[in-house]
Amino acid sequence: SQTRRRRMKRLKIASLPGDGVGKEVVPAAQTVLKAVSNVHGGMQFDFTEYPWSCEYYLEHNQMMPDDALERLQDADAIFLGAVGNQKLVPDHISLWGMLIKIRREFEQVINIRPAKLLKGITSPLTNPKDFDLLVVRENSEGEYSEVGGRIFRGEDEVAIQNAIFSRRGTERAMRYAFELAAKRRKHVTSATKSNGIVHSMPFWDEVFQAVKSDYPDIESDSQHIDALAAFFVTQPQRFDVIVASNLFGDVLTDIGAAIMGSIGIAPAANINVNGKYPSMFEPVHGSAPDIVGKGIANPIGQIWTAKLMLDHFGEEELGVKLLDIIEDVTAARILTPDLGGKYATEDVTAAIVDRVHK
Amino acid sequence: SQTRRRRMKRLKIASLPGDGVGKEVVPAAQTVLKAVSNVHGGMQFDFTEYPWSCEYYLEHNQMMPDDALERLQDADAIFLGAVGNQKLVPDHISLWGMLIKIRREFEQVINIRPAKLLKGITSPLTNPKDFDLLVVRENSEGEYSEVGGRIFRGEDEVAIQNAIFSRRGTERAMRYAFELAAKRRKHVTSATKSNGIVHSMPFWDEVFQAVKSDYPDIESDSQHIDALAAFFVTQPQRFDVIVASNLFGDVLTDIGAAIMGSIGIAPAANINVNGKYPSMFEPVHGSAPDIVGKGIANPIGQIWTAKLMLDHFGEEELGVKLLDIIEDVTAARILTPDLGGKYATEDVTAAIVDRVHK
Ligand SMILES: CC(C)[C@H](C(=O)O)[C@@H](O)C(=O)O
Ligand SMILES: CC(C)[C@H](C(=O)O)[C@@H](O)C(=O)O
Repeated sequence: SQTRRRRMKRLKIASLPGDGVGKEVVPAAQTVLKAVSNVHGGMQFDFTEYPWSCEYYLEHNQMMPDDALERLQDADAIFLGAVGNQKLVPDHISLWGMLIKIRREFEQVINIRPAKLLKGITSPLTNPKDFDLLVVRENSEGEYSEVGGRIFRGEDEVAIQNAIFSRRGTERAMRYAFELAAKRRKHVTSATKSNGIVHSMPFWDEVFQAVKSDYPDIESDSQHIDALAAFFVTQPQRFDVIVASNLFGDVLTDIGAAIMGSIGIAPAANINVNGKYPSMFEPVHGSAPDIVGKGIANPIGQIWTAKLMLDHFGEEELGVKLLDIIEDVTAARILTPDLGGKYATEDVTAAIVDRVHK
Repeated sequence: SQTRRRRMKRLKIASLPGDGVGKEVVPAAQTVLKAVSNVHGGMQFDFTEYPWSCEYYLEHNQMMPDDALERLQDADAIFLGAVGNQKLVPDHISLWGMLIKIRREFEQVINIRPAKLLKGITSPLTNPKDFDLLVVRENSEGEYSEVGGRIFRGEDEVAIQNAIFSRRGTERAMRYAFELAAKRRKHVTSATKSNGIVHSMPFWDEVFQAVKSDYPDIESDSQHIDALAAFFVTQPQRFDVIVASNLFGDVLTDIGAAIMGSIGIAPAANINVNGKYPSMFEPVHGSAPDIVGKGIANPIGQIWTAKLMLDHFGEEELGVKLLDIIEDVTAARILTPDLGGKYATEDVTAAIVDRVHK
């Protein structure tokens, strides 16, 4: 399906700004994508925007209309900002009604989240070295499950939550990680917690042992999630590819974003691997209600996410160029306040667009 | 029971060095405790040592003998080093056969884990400010559960893991956190993930709402675990007391240990709150197989843990003194290699004992 897309001149992008700063950074990143297509020709992005969000929910009592998935289905990719506004809608309703729903229904079973330090950006770590890691997060099952419920009342009440790990899903994420590692520094770390969590995690370890034997050229190790989270702080440079469950991947990638200098710059891609549905490109950060409307949201997370979308379309060369340009701009210290700068969303965006045109 | 203990001259401590560096740091900390009791009089520690460990398992096919809990039951406290040696025994067997077993059977339902920066120690954070936080970890249920199993075979295999949250257990941990916060900076943060985990975590949030209304003088907030993990890196100083589930507390406290400069110094206490069984004092770090036998294990985690044991016996004044002494030694840069120093376990221990005698 990538080959098919490569030949296409027009790429249909379903644009879902969603909530909060999503509505500020998605337009910014679209401006950049348009500049990229103008300059490099042979490629055109047709954006169709959908207003689905918590505000939409207040009017329609659902996050997205009944035919939302049908409408998204023919897109070549979905470009999403952020979902969630606790003041309007409880998070589990907004997220499961939109973000997680799309991930699941469109079988976006893998979430890819790189973390590396860009020039000009100060990490909160004294000695970040040159870390450059990639978390492959299982994106369709595991701890994020709707199976569970409650029993008894009052002080005896008990809530039960099931985490569901299939061999198919687990193995798929692990193979994906090994394949990526083969093109990188050839090391995969498995995030486990089999010492404390005695059904799902020993199973996870077993599958990892089985998968790794198919990749004799790739080195690997297993780390418990607690130790791994600490290593992200003390020695992030030791990691290449990390494969993690849905929850562990979620936690690790926020730490990854933190050590990159700001959650506002961390990119992510929700990948549909069977080619049946579009993939979704969505940065790690959320809707950031505290800075909404101030014009200071960092657009880099969304723009770097656009770079992952270019990669996905087979335009790796353009992708590399775009990341170089982003890094030019950070190196020039044209930074939003989350990175210690004084620039606005539109300044950073303009600086990037400017360099695309050169 | 604390009052009863306070009047006692002799405190019976069941000493369980366990595996790896546990066997190096427990004796070190006992030397310190003996010095403390010698100098400050009126108190004597009688240590009874038990050899239960992965090596013990190899001989006896169990981590502890059948009557282990009976033998521990009359102790005033249990002083444990570390459990686990994957080369000899799978972690889930060694841990559930000893560490987690004691936590559960002795109803040590609360795990207290402070994180703060000591003088002379370099945090991996550029700007750690003066963070001083305390994680109250639910220690008896939640994600660590033996409920679950597998179904189907081959590529269809599925592992199911139940997380079990009781209102009683959840509320108990939260109340404990609010009570501690009342004696500190009067702020409690709840670690949640109700946007992704839709049964246990919305329940956790509900209980938190209910409990907090009983503490109008304590401020509070809720943070999703991913964001919270990142905040431990970017702004740890903003936290006072954090209440977290078993798994979330586990992950947060390893990050807490990392930002303190080394997992080797982080202390912890497993508290039995109903007075029926002894509490257990056990640092955050594990058995650290990579440095075993080199004489360089950091004894401070275990010694600081001994300080928490003094607090528990009602000897807060001695506890404060001991922590001051530890900080004197770190300020003098008498540090083991994990903290960038060149000193051995016994040097650091001797320096502390020395100052106790002064
Ligand atoms: C060894 C392991 C089971 C244990 C836990 O996860 O509770 C440890 O990490 C801890 O934090 O005490
Ligand atoms: C908003 C939330 C449900 C989501 C997740 O946990 O998957 C987010 O944290 C992320 O990492 O994309």
